[in-house]
Amino acid sequence: MLKRFSISLEKELLDDFDKLIQATGYINRSEAIRDLIRNNLVQKEWLEGETETAGVVVLVYDHHRQELSQKLTDLQHQAHESITAALHVHLDQHNCLEVIVLQGRSGSIQKISDSLISTKGVKHGRFVSTTMGRKFL
Amino acid sequence: MLKRFSISLEKELLDDFDKLIQATGYINRSEAIRDLIRNNLVQKEWLEGETETAGVVVLVYDHHRQELSQKLTDLQHQAHESITAALHVHLDQHNCLEVIVLQGRSGSIQKISDSLISTKGVKHGRFVSTTMGRKFL
Amino acid sequence: MLKRFSISLEKELLDDFDKLIQATGYINRSEAIRDLIRNNLVQKEWLEGETETAGVVVLVYDHHRQELSQKLTDLQHQAHESITAALHVHLDQHNCLEVIVLQGRSGSIQKISDSLISTKGVKHGRFVSTTMGRKFL
Amino acid sequence: MLKRFSISLEKELLDDFDKLIQATGYINRSEAIRDLIRNNLVQKEWLEGETETAGVVVLVYDHHRQELSQKLTDLQHQAHESITAALHVHLDQHNCLEVIVLQGRSGSIQKISDSLISTKGVKHGRFVSTTMGRKFL
Repeated sequence: MLKRFSISLEKELLDDFDKLIQATGYINRSEAIRDLIRNNLVQKEWLEGETETAGVVVLVYDHHRQELSQKLTDLQHQAHESITAALHVHLDQHNCLEVIVLQGRSGSIQKISDSLISTKGVKHGRFVSTTMGRKFL
Repeated sequence: MLKRFSISLEKELLDDFDKLIQATGYINRSEAIRDLIRNNLVQKEWLEGETETAGVVVLVYDHHRQELSQKLTDLQHQAHESITAALHVHLDQHNCLEVIVLQGRSGSIQKISDSLISTKGVKHGRFVSTTMGRKFL
Repeated sequence: MLKRFSISLEKELLDDFDKLIQATGYINRSEAIRDLIRNNLVQKEWLEGETETAGVVVLVYDHHRQELSQKLTDLQHQAHESITAALHVHLDQHNCLEVIVLQGRSGSIQKISDSLISTKGVKHGRFVSTTMGRKFL
Repeated sequence: MLKRFSISLEKELLDDFDKLIQATGYINRSEAIRDLIRNNLVQKEWLEGETETAGVVVLVYDHHRQELSQKLTDLQHQAHESITAALHVHLDQHNCLEVIVLQGRSGSIQKISDSLISTKGVKHGRFVSTTMGRKFL
């Protein structure tokens, strides 16, 4: 169910915001403000760690280092209950980028992410938290 | 001049947002949404670097290291045109916290901040960008 | 080619750091410090925007909104030269998580990411920058 | 007490890092790496929230809104046990920037910061966590 409410904003601020959301690609203010609000709530959900949530690990590494691929695969299998899927991209002859999708409590997701990113030989690793999307109809 | 407009949001999302803004202390939704929008615009202003803006450097260091206090004072005097004011707090017998307020283009503020934070002996340094507030009536 | 050099650190600071890297899962200090340094350099590479780099967009949305799936697919095809691969995960009956891997200059990657995240109906969208990994042998 | 240890890094990575630390202003690698490590530890200290720590709130607002100045002063007095000092800068005829230094547990500092930043009329508010510096000799 959608609820409609009104807010007031200084004209100059609103003009600047309109320019920004147009440059980003939002179709209207509601959509842009909804995104700001959802981001706020997802951050809070993550910090509280009480509900099931989702996150994504991004790893860049050299697949020629065989023991590394093996180690990462082992780690993923140990955490198979939290790991939903993985995508492997060949960046060039040496480098590959792997994306791993995790589901679970934020604490346990964070732990698995730490163990993957800290594996010797991973050139760059980043983690991004998101949401299961259930709250957001 | 204030402009009033209405946005629509899913009921559940709105309930969660209302809880969050109450916990934070906002008096109403307009105020909370204005803050989200202003933060967005301040970030953009900072990245574009075209207008005069403001920033704050926070340093924690041991004031017993005399050459350090001297070095920080020298750096601040070299940049006196951009440094508006400074506040010195005695955290304990050894440690002090210094807050330095900077005004100017973002690029030049960033450079001064870098030189202060990277000074040998500074235990912790952080920089936070803000705004001159002119756009926000 | 590996180069070896020595650094000095306060004993207490080193003890705390050792505890932190053990909790995270790093096998030794070199590995943990390498990661801190690489993160620093990847951030700089991204801001400079001069070399080809990589990034990942994470989207959560309801796949029942057919026009949305169609819109996202259209956007991805328009940007097919920069989009390397995509992974689609079914979070539950309604929600899906999509991961899109992008390659190119940071400015153009950012633009595509903006257009995907701002699409009406996307519940949560985040972007994470990474690297092609070429510099990091 | 300083402890000396050696780490190994790829030559190309080290060259890039050397360029970066020179541009930032660090006198040597030890100093730059110490800063990366301290930042890491300060973040962890803040999340754990067990020891006394320090933070800084930055507020930009229009001092002509008298009820606002009054409200901010009241809030600060209510929290006087955690607020160490404040610095007030006149940005222009209308706008002022206020820096407030807080000490205490991270949870309680965060709460005070929230109440200040969310006060109606504050144009921009940001919070930055730092440290009492005791660990870092």
